[in-house]
Amino acid sequence: MALQDEFHFIDQIKPKRVFQSGLIAGIGDDAALFRPTPNMEQIICMDTMVEGVHFNSHTMDPYQIGYKALAVNISDIAAMGGVPTYYLVSIAIPKDWNEADLLSIYEGMAMLADRYAMDLIGGDTVSIAETLVITVTVLGEVEKGKHFLRSHAKPGDIVFVTGTIGDSAAGLNLLLHNGKEHSFTELEESLIHKHQYPIPKVEIGRLLSSFDRVSLNDISDGLASEANEIAKASGVTLRIDDDKIPLSEAILTQFKDRALEFAFYGGEDFELVGTVAASDWDILQKKAKEHGYVLSKIGIVSDDGPAVFLNRNGELQKLEMKGYNHFTK
Amino acid sequence: MALQDEFHFIDQIKPKRVFQSGLIAGIGDDAALFRPTPNMEQIICMDTMVEGVHFNSHTMDPYQIGYKALAVNISDIAAMGGVPTYYLVSIAIPKDWNEADLLSIYEGMAMLADRYAMDLIGGDTVSIAETLVITVTVLGEVEKGKHFLRSHAKPGDIVFVTGTIGDSAAGLNLLLHNGKEHSFTELEESLIHKHQYPIPKVEIGRLLSSFDRVSLNDISDGLASEANEIAKASGVTLRIDDDKIPLSEAILTQFKDRALEFAFYGGEDFELVGTVAASDWDILQKKAKEHGYVLSKIGIVSDDGPAVFLNRNGELQKLEMKGYNHFTK
Repeated sequence: MALQDEFHFIDQIKPKRVFQSGLIAGIGDDAALFRPTPNMEQIICMDTMVEGVHFNSHTMDPYQIGYKALAVNISDIAAMGGVPTYYLVSIAIPKDWNEADLLSIYEGMAMLADRYAMDLIGGDTVSIAETLVITVTVLGEVEKGKHFLRSHAKPGDIVFVTGTIGDSAAGLNLLLHNGKEHSFTELEESLIHKHQYPIPKVEIGRLLSSFDRVSLNDISDGLASEANEIAKASGVTLRIDDDKIPLSEAILTQFKDRALEFAFYGGEDFELVGTVAASDWDILQKKAKEHGYVLSKIGIVSDDGPAVFLNRNGELQKLEMKGYNHFTK
Repeated sequence: MALQDEFHFIDQIKPKRVFQSGLIAGIGDDAALFRPTPNMEQIICMDTMVEGVHFNSHTMDPYQIGYKALAVNISDIAAMGGVPTYYLVSIAIPKDWNEADLLSIYEGMAMLADRYAMDLIGGDTVSIAETLVITVTVLGEVEKGKHFLRSHAKPGDIVFVTGTIGDSAAGLNLLLHNGKEHSFTELEESLIHKHQYPIPKVEIGRLLSSFDRVSLNDISDGLASEANEIAKASGVTLRIDDDKIPLSEAILTQFKDRALEFAFYGGEDFELVGTVAASDWDILQKKAKEHGYVLSKIGIVSDDGPAVFLNRNGELQKLEMKGYNHFTK
């Protein structure tokens, strides 16, 4: 993008209003400036999405790409128990993308940002030869000492997940086989929606923050990988019951045989997996229900060293940290 | 990069020590957590460098790419009057890059980060088909109300720059014509060094912060563009004297006829351009000299509307906001 075009583009994406009272200077200077809220810890994360790796023209339109690039970062803030406040966007733009599509990316982000009263405060726009790359940094905050770490799990804890798992990967599978313009059934659409518009679990994170000790991870790389990260960071064993994994009606109807594969290795659900003290579980369940959130107990924590075991019809098998390769499966 | 390789790679780049006492959790969870220093404003910026656009194998080696990707961001913190504290790195890696070169990128960053006691606290590693893309986010802080904005210039102010201008573009020109393996003269080497290892002007920024009102911009896109940004943000005219632009012995020897072109339109010097009250100029000059910094008065601010004029042998001509196109000139 030539410099003049860049200035014109930046003028168009510049937010028309400010949500956060701590913002001193957003887009328009060398860097952004803000006053952090007193007595809050600051949270920061950064995730990148690459054309041809995390999305392509068969799976997502520009608006969805923008939405998702921000959502995956907000999900990381949620997994720390925080609320998102600001975001910055760096975009590398190939010649074959037009301005309308680029603006759509920012509109998809702005839609989600508005929901959380987040301000876009900076970033970069650069050229690239071939593939669009979008990197988003999100700032958030959490009350002092109230954050969740993966290392907080202890033997005796309950392992839980939010929502249903595996839907995003099932939706991606449908998109890769049929393309996003295909006429899908309502159940199929619900899976695809989970892939294109994952909802960060900020509110559930905030609800959890009223409990003393919570370990938490957002499910970006599949349940197997995320559970192993908690096990490793906490030095504990997570024993997960195969038949307790919450699966949606849609995935059971469309992908009965592959549902658990998608849940364990599929990734991009952006649900949460975590642990709480067993004594807190009933209260947590009750509170979650009051707010309309679905939490499922899927296992327990024991002190047999850092590992994840799957209880499959009474037989324990190790759940390896196999990852998610987006478009290669 | 496969997930297992990614974990291995992250283990290697994870810092072995912590500088900032406010850091609660760095690399290794969903997001990083820190306690901001009381009574300080937080500063944040984000810049991207793309293979084939901002660097290629003829102009920079991996260590230099890493150094520069961090330096350009620290320069933005310096232009706000702040000190850098933390950084995050997202890297999109094509298959043809090997691990040793990738680690070199992080070593180049770590060398500079150590100098400023900055901690690497997060980021992302993803695959890409063709070109390496590196995006760096830097956090910094500045005492409440002590930040500099481009909008701070007022009629009667002195316009100044730090160091010498145009050297980086001259160095890039040498690299593009000869390749980085060429045997350069000592003077040529000094220009190339300015392109490959620009030094962010954090210390000068801090010295300026003892003055009441300073407008400041770092020179990333060439002096013409940066001066226009101050003029526009402050609604003032900057009148710059052509013959006051500080040019290095090297650029005058190697590129006598193109030196000013490089200075105005070349970019990537990462020196600072700014304005201070005329009554502060002498004290500032004295203080700068005591610390061994070179500041040059290059013009004055007047109230003739937002524009930049160049005084060339007594004739005023408008200095347009022409930008920097890296590899196309």
